[in-house]
Amino acid sequence: MTFSTPIDFRSDTVTRPDEAMRSAMAGAEVGDNVIDTDPTIRKLEERAAETLGMPAALWTPSGTMANVVALSLHLRRGDRFLATQGAHVLVNELGSAAWLAGGMPEPLAHDAGPGRPSPQAVRTAAGTRTGPYYVLRTTLLCLENTHNAAGGAVTPPDEHARLVATARECGLGVHLDGARLWHAAAALDLPPAALTVGADSVSACFSKGLGAPVGSVLAGSEEFVEEARRMRQMLGGGVRQGGVLAAACLLALDRVGDLADDHAKARTLAAGLRDLGWEVAEPETNIVLATVPDVTLTLDWLNGLGVLVLPMAGRVRFVTHRDLAHSDIEDALGRIKAASR
Amino acid sequence: MTFSTPIDFRSDTVTRPDEAMRSAMAGAEVGDNVIDTDPTIRKLEERAAETLGMPAALWTPSGTMANVVALSLHLRRGDRFLATQGAHVLVNELGSAAWLAGGMPEPLAHDAGPGRPSPQAVRTAAGTRTGPYYVLRTTLLCLENTHNAAGGAVTPPDEHARLVATARECGLGVHLDGARLWHAAAALDLPPAALTVGADSVSACFSKGLGAPVGSVLAGSEEFVEEARRMRQMLGGGVRQGGVLAAACLLALDRVGDLADDHAKARTLAAGLRDLGWEVAEPETNIVLATVPDVTLTLDWLNGLGVLVLPMAGRVRFVTHRDLAHSDIEDALGRIKAASR
Amino acid sequence: MTFSTPIDFRSDTVTRPDEAMRSAMAGAEVGDNVIDTDPTIRKLEERAAETLGMPAALWTPSGTMANVVALSLHLRRGDRFLATQGAHVLVNELGSAAWLAGGMPEPLAHDAGPGRPSPQAVRTAAGTRTGPYYVLRTTLLCLENTHNAAGGAVTPPDEHARLVATARECGLGVHLDGARLWHAAAALDLPPAALTVGADSVSACFSKGLGAPVGSVLAGSEEFVEEARRMRQMLGGGVRQGGVLAAACLLALDRVGDLADDHAKARTLAAGLRDLGWEVAEPETNIVLATVPDVTLTLDWLNGLGVLVLPMAGRVRFVTHRDLAHSDIEDALGRIKAASR
Amino acid sequence: MTFSTPIDFRSDTVTRPDEAMRSAMAGAEVGDNVIDTDPTIRKLEERAAETLGMPAALWTPSGTMANVVALSLHLRRGDRFLATQGAHVLVNELGSAAWLAGGMPEPLAHDAGPGRPSPQAVRTAAGTRTGPYYVLRTTLLCLENTHNAAGGAVTPPDEHARLVATARECGLGVHLDGARLWHAAAALDLPPAALTVGADSVSACFSKGLGAPVGSVLAGSEEFVEEARRMRQMLGGGVRQGGVLAAACLLALDRVGDLADDHAKARTLAAGLRDLGWEVAEPETNIVLATVPDVTLTLDWLNGLGVLVLPMAGRVRFVTHRDLAHSDIEDALGRIKAASR
Repeated sequence: MTFSTPIDFRSDTVTRPDEAMRSAMAGAEVGDNVIDTDPTIRKLEERAAETLGMPAALWTPSGTMANVVALSLHLRRGDRFLATQGAHVLVNELGSAAWLAGGMPEPLAHDAGPGRPSPQAVRTAAGTRTGPYYVLRTTLLCLENTHNAAGGAVTPPDEHARLVATARECGLGVHLDGARLWHAAAALDLPPAALTVGADSVSACFSKGLGAPVGSVLAGSEEFVEEARRMRQMLGGGVRQGGVLAAACLLALDRVGDLADDHAKARTLAAGLRDLGWEVAEPETNIVLATVPDVTLTLDWLNGLGVLVLPMAGRVRFVTHRDLAHSDIEDALGRIKAASR
Repeated sequence: MTFSTPIDFRSDTVTRPDEAMRSAMAGAEVGDNVIDTDPTIRKLEERAAETLGMPAALWTPSGTMANVVALSLHLRRGDRFLATQGAHVLVNELGSAAWLAGGMPEPLAHDAGPGRPSPQAVRTAAGTRTGPYYVLRTTLLCLENTHNAAGGAVTPPDEHARLVATARECGLGVHLDGARLWHAAAALDLPPAALTVGADSVSACFSKGLGAPVGSVLAGSEEFVEEARRMRQMLGGGVRQGGVLAAACLLALDRVGDLADDHAKARTLAAGLRDLGWEVAEPETNIVLATVPDVTLTLDWLNGLGVLVLPMAGRVRFVTHRDLAHSDIEDALGRIKAASR
Repeated sequence: MTFSTPIDFRSDTVTRPDEAMRSAMAGAEVGDNVIDTDPTIRKLEERAAETLGMPAALWTPSGTMANVVALSLHLRRGDRFLATQGAHVLVNELGSAAWLAGGMPEPLAHDAGPGRPSPQAVRTAAGTRTGPYYVLRTTLLCLENTHNAAGGAVTPPDEHARLVATARECGLGVHLDGARLWHAAAALDLPPAALTVGADSVSACFSKGLGAPVGSVLAGSEEFVEEARRMRQMLGGGVRQGGVLAAACLLALDRVGDLADDHAKARTLAAGLRDLGWEVAEPETNIVLATVPDVTLTLDWLNGLGVLVLPMAGRVRFVTHRDLAHSDIEDALGRIKAASR
Repeated sequence: MTFSTPIDFRSDTVTRPDEAMRSAMAGAEVGDNVIDTDPTIRKLEERAAETLGMPAALWTPSGTMANVVALSLHLRRGDRFLATQGAHVLVNELGSAAWLAGGMPEPLAHDAGPGRPSPQAVRTAAGTRTGPYYVLRTTLLCLENTHNAAGGAVTPPDEHARLVATARECGLGVHLDGARLWHAAAALDLPPAALTVGADSVSACFSKGLGAPVGSVLAGSEEFVEEARRMRQMLGGGVRQGGVLAAACLLALDRVGDLADDHAKARTLAAGLRDLGWEVAEPETNIVLATVPDVTLTLDWLNGLGVLVLPMAGRVRFVTHRDLAHSDIEDALGRIKAASR
């Protein structure tokens, strides 16, 4: 049995720009975004700020850059920051939170639910606000919504608010890694801005699930964004006629509503896998994590079936997205069922 | 007298993608360039490597990132590197060569001609290869061709070779900042690869003069480029479907031959300014530096005429490029002449 | 009731040099240890290397510097290192492992016993040796023996060996923070070198429990120590006639055998506290951790009794040392008993 | 002819503590200077602050650490700082100003006299105070008095004041590397505080010329010193019973007046070398720089005579100090004369 067409569940970053997006890029009004402001980037930044409910926003070429810029601004040398176990800033950014932003991470267990710590855990980890000069200083709480390693878990607004309030009480700033904040908003049927309340900075991606080829955004106060603009330039993220990319990001923002369909695909996949005897957590958004006896073996076996997946936090991760049809889900389940006999 | 249309000499980075470029972007074949390889980025990297005469190349979102990645790989903590006074890595990259790449710069005078040091100056600055452990270690020579702050000055292949040979003799690696290497090649009517001989790494830009909206490249050995790929990811320069940008960069590479015309525009401009009594160095490529009594005053005056320029190394810099017609040069000279009466 | 003389259990770093040590310092042969080698520092480094069973050693002004130099040499930018929860390099060095050495820490639970992870936990955290370029690289296991936050817990040689073997298997280097390795050796009645087998580098302190006023050591291969010498100079740890300090450190090395008596004091203290109803772990060396309902309250209360202690990992830490007599332990217990009535 | 006793002109750091100093060290009152304050360190810091005319001071194990702590506090990532060519922070600290403090140096010529730039050069290099976000930010002027590479050159108070005023005008902070500020004060017969007016921070060394074995100081405002204390701890410069060293530093402060005699030795040496036909600058303090045709050859030749020297800025450097008698100067001149025949 051969499978000529692979079905790509590796990530929602694999989505390709469609014709509408390519056409928007081709027609974008542009300018030099270093020495001037590119008009389409500016339009995107204004719209993203509004969508995220923040005063200002800055385009960046990637979510990794948005996060590392944010952490660089929040943290002084050696400051400790709190983040959930398996957080993208801890595991998926090649240590830049430490070596580049200068932060000493403290991973928090997901003791309040998948993807989120309890206020008490934050309080304990934050320690006392004052201490002698030779004591580690904890200054930032880093949240992630949805939480990738927790299987696309959603933190609802009330839990978010409780965590933000605790952070304030402990003198911590709050950065929200919202790479897939759109998915959380879609799952809760809330505007994204409802999920950022009280955060000092928010990053979000247009290339995860929304189909834009390149681009993320970092939102915060006007002052924060001005400093971020400088830091982006330092890291080499200042580009010239980036409007060609921003045009696609603007279109991506129109598609947040489509994500509910990706979540439905994830539920179908999870149910199908469970029917085949797999141990699968019920997906809250577009990520399905399966617990298997041997991850490497299963990855190889699935890849052999043309069902492309990646490992994540000791499990097998399937990500559904707009470039997969509902029939692709059925097809993948069919391949797995056939090969499992 | 009002000038409705500004004539933009601020930089050749202001050039906008034309229809052909936009169409190439819209039709680009793409893939996820982090977890796979985007086919158009791969094609660009292969062609850029060949054009630059290097074993391999890596796309980056900016020349600043290409340079800082290169320096990060060449330098260990605190290593001294030699660069010419006013070099882009010293003056125009917000100190990233120091704080990010960890290098201690030693600026060299342009004692062998505009934009280049003499071999003897390199030898003296490099010092002895061996020394006690508490002595600063000099490990890299950073060249720039054409040299921006020296008015687009060209280093010809024989002088380049002499400098590379001296670097080797002193145990130094060589990085060539070739943001405008294309201009040097066009001015000398040589292939770009003739100007990189012996360099360990070369950066080059597609958004300076060639019209691509976003993109640069860092070239070096296979091993160097593999390490650079990791460093690019660390800095947040890893993008997904970057092929939409690489398609424009590929087209830009077809246009290196067009640069001779920009150089002709610069000569026309320089001659015209000299006729008006300005003190102007004869341009070797597309940059015209004018020495004026008061830079700020002159900038304001020119801007008032709709002749947009920027300051550079204590002078006024005019840059010619493909988005300026020969008639724009005449127009600018006319405005200056009229206002000078 | 007033207590004129405080009894200082805050740390074994409070020990003062005695007459013999002061006399050794006053008579030390010295030289300029930057441009030459100070003869007493050299003697100390040779003896420390031998005592620790390592090829070479380097004096440093503090254990923090010894550790940060070691991590700086072991880790490239962003490399992940594994360390036990509450490890000194994670909690007590102001984040320098991250911002200065560039490492991304991964705290491991003490699942094999107090102060040590299981080989399986190391294996899981280390992950696979090979992976795509965008994946965090884990390169170092950092052990601590005795383990401060685990109450001076000892890792015996067989468990140490198992962990080192696992590290090797996973391609990890091993750094041993042996600030109180002397205490582990005394507790096990083994030479210190029996506890360093297979480690790539070892730090140890002369000012913790042994009474020297200033000084630590970093041991490793000849090449490692040569690089460490340079890094020490970079951080400002290169001193001139440091032999005056090294003379005290040499004498400290003669006193490793005395530590057993400090351990006896700790056992007396723990037993006494338990008799008074305190919840106290049985000390393995010279550190007694007491679990109390309210740490801040207890600290204040004890300080009011002239029984000086510090908080540690959510508990109250008592450290016994050579400047406390057995009668001081009884005195402290008496004060606590009297005040508890 | 053999010279059994070398005469050591390599540095004034080679001076050994004498009996009085050793005795002071042996008798020093001490405490744990991390968790408490060592009383002798405190006494030294208070006296040093007063002597330097600054609000507060912090002991550090070396001048390199004092300087790198200062620069770390003054500079944000990538900030440009101005320093004189050949300055200790540029050449003799292994690049830590760049990789550790994050500063991008701009070397200034000694256009106002040996060891000092002109106010105009500072003004030009500082550039405008405001600029677009992508422009290098210049924030610090680093002075050095006496200036080592300029042959121990003294900057008198009026020139110092002019430079400080210019720095203020340009919005720059001022750090004064006063490793040998004592020598400048002695040469001018002024109190050291007369030479620090207007500086934001001052470093000074007790192991250069004053005979203390180990120790420097960083002085500044109370707030600055508190931050410096934290940074010192981060770098591993926090020591325990450092009072044993501070006692020697206190005695060193009593000896500032003795330096005039070292200056006389330098003048004798310079005159003697000139009589032998050497090209020697007239020393202002205790450093004699000789220009020779081949530095390496001359170093070897002098070392062969037992006249120990080091190279400095392309010349041969002789440093006079308290461990050299006037007769040693004559002896050295005699050896050179005899060997020159």
